[in-house]
Amino acid sequence: MGDSVCNGTHNKKALLSDPPLFEAKFDELVAELTERDFTDPVLADALNRLREVLVYNAPGGKRNRGLSVIGSLRELLPPSELTQDTVQRALLVGWCIELLQAFFLVADDIMDGSVTRRGQPCWYKRDGIGLDAINDSFLLEGSIYRLLRRHCRDQPYYVHLLELFVETSFQTELGQALDLMTAPPGQIDLSRFTVQRYKAIVKYKTAFYSFYLPVAAAMYMAGIDSEEEHSNAKHILLEMGEFFQIQDDYLDCYGDPAVTGKIGTDIQDNKCSWLVVTALEVMTPEQRAELEACYGRNDEASVEKVKALYNTLQIPTLYHNYEDESYQRLQKLIATHAQNLPHAVFLNFAKKIYKRKK
Amino acid sequence: MGDSVCNGTHNKKALLSDPPLFEAKFDELVAELTERDFTDPVLADALNRLREVLVYNAPGGKRNRGLSVIGSLRELLPPSELTQDTVQRALLVGWCIELLQAFFLVADDIMDGSVTRRGQPCWYKRDGIGLDAINDSFLLEGSIYRLLRRHCRDQPYYVHLLELFVETSFQTELGQALDLMTAPPGQIDLSRFTVQRYKAIVKYKTAFYSFYLPVAAAMYMAGIDSEEEHSNAKHILLEMGEFFQIQDDYLDCYGDPAVTGKIGTDIQDNKCSWLVVTALEVMTPEQRAELEACYGRNDEASVEKVKALYNTLQIPTLYHNYEDESYQRLQKLIATHAQNLPHAVFLNFAKKIYKRKK
Repeated sequence: MGDSVCNGTHNKKALLSDPPLFEAKFDELVAELTERDFTDPVLADALNRLREVLVYNAPGGKRNRGLSVIGSLRELLPPSELTQDTVQRALLVGWCIELLQAFFLVADDIMDGSVTRRGQPCWYKRDGIGLDAINDSFLLEGSIYRLLRRHCRDQPYYVHLLELFVETSFQTELGQALDLMTAPPGQIDLSRFTVQRYKAIVKYKTAFYSFYLPVAAAMYMAGIDSEEEHSNAKHILLEMGEFFQIQDDYLDCYGDPAVTGKIGTDIQDNKCSWLVVTALEVMTPEQRAELEACYGRNDEASVEKVKALYNTLQIPTLYHNYEDESYQRLQKLIATHAQNLPHAVFLNFAKKIYKRKK
Repeated sequence: MGDSVCNGTHNKKALLSDPPLFEAKFDELVAELTERDFTDPVLADALNRLREVLVYNAPGGKRNRGLSVIGSLRELLPPSELTQDTVQRALLVGWCIELLQAFFLVADDIMDGSVTRRGQPCWYKRDGIGLDAINDSFLLEGSIYRLLRRHCRDQPYYVHLLELFVETSFQTELGQALDLMTAPPGQIDLSRFTVQRYKAIVKYKTAFYSFYLPVAAAMYMAGIDSEEEHSNAKHILLEMGEFFQIQDDYLDCYGDPAVTGKIGTDIQDNKCSWLVVTALEVMTPEQRAELEACYGRNDEASVEKVKALYNTLQIPTLYHNYEDESYQRLQKLIATHAQNLPHAVFLNFAKKIYKRKK
């Protein structure tokens, strides 16, 4: 597991073929969950519902999280240990992360009153669904543990994965609780928006499940279960997660919609974004009064005023400085904390996210 | 663990003192979850929210489920093995079942549009809560696994309890899915109400978590983990769970509100109740037309017509016959399936529920 066998280059070919493998795995697991797991005929209607919920909500994302499990495992294990079975299990655990995300997204969309998600109506907005979507979100969550049980029960890391998924879920839920009380839809109160609160929300609501979870799952699958190694990896990955979200917030306002594929609405939606918490730290009381009058409003004029304020405060410059610092910090963290973990596990992630434009 | 040491009488005194012990355990676990589990200061607001959610939603029920864990364990273990630590862990696992129930009730109340629960407003109906209650229900669920991890991680049955809780949750969620599609609030369609569907809903939505779960948890804690013994216990306990729900449905219509403490509204609420599915099986097409005109309506006259129809069809007689048959069937099941499990585990339950009036 040293760098000699895992230098991040020997398995590029394998990585190129992971996405179609991952794709194909989905149909298999849907069939498994809805046809082979529970077979009591009285459950037929409930299992049909489960199929619809899975098919509508689990695919359609970028799948970075799900693909990271096999991607990380390829760096952690020498090719000789990457048997067919091991690869299949890594794809499955990857889908469990996508299911966890689907669980949160279905529920968050209801709580936020969102309308669309991944280019289609939110699940709860579909005809005849409504608040029944709450139970559907539970089914997505429950599917994770059905799959782990069916595929990983005999593996030495089974209980580690169970604990990892329930712990990460709880951290994400604490983060969502913080987010809901910091920026309740419809209530504008900028005094709640601080850098400290922002970082707490990002860490708990996003970074644990998006960054630490996939790598930690791969580490357990590779037999790495020491607390110290996990703590080191967590340190690095949460730093990346924070940067990723800050960048996401930056692109929401400053990204090119032709490249990102979406038009940002964080200002209108009263989001506790890195831009607003940073602006609040450097602005004058007069500028703050102007921000308070315009933030979280839906009219174009208000949005433009907020953007003008950001420009006056040189938020893009502050962002680019932050990006450079964060990148340096991360390189140092990897150098000091990665220890005997192959650096490629982290660098693969870092390459994807720093200086991305979408 | 034979009948000689577990005859269901030696430990009556201990049983009498369980409810106050159980009660006292709650404050302890709230403090643990909100003060000692996560200590990151940025989480303070989220942990305060968790405290409010726990205090409002977890206590207040009858606690039969939670108390059944220690009650069953007292039958399964000789007193010499019931150390202080074992008792405390059984109380804790009991509270995990109450937390699971709270998780489902908070969410079900939102999906059903309910107004009150246990004599107070439903959590989501409280000022400032609303749909944020969805995330609060997740926190209740997540608390189960935090507590199990903190108290049972070193026990040989830890992974069994994890699997038991996640499996039971999924069964309950499948049952809720069936229930929602069978009796969607506001849509009256009696063709969906069949005895078979009724039994499936009861089994999955109620019986697994209310009857099998507490006894199964105690069995694992007592070191009983053979599939056969669990399958036998499940058989008996699901039969009891079905009877319990049928009785609950009967009491909703025919119970004395002065005794039950509540006024039933199953007819108004379009519930797929044992009374209506049984009536549908024995009625004429004319009676069915009348039922269709009156069921699920809120006016007193319609409700009275449904009740008159039930009386004409002699539903109370059918119920009492069913009760006797179920009791006989249960005695036989216990005799043939309990095997080397102490019969008192099941009989304690049976005594509480057969011929109850509330």
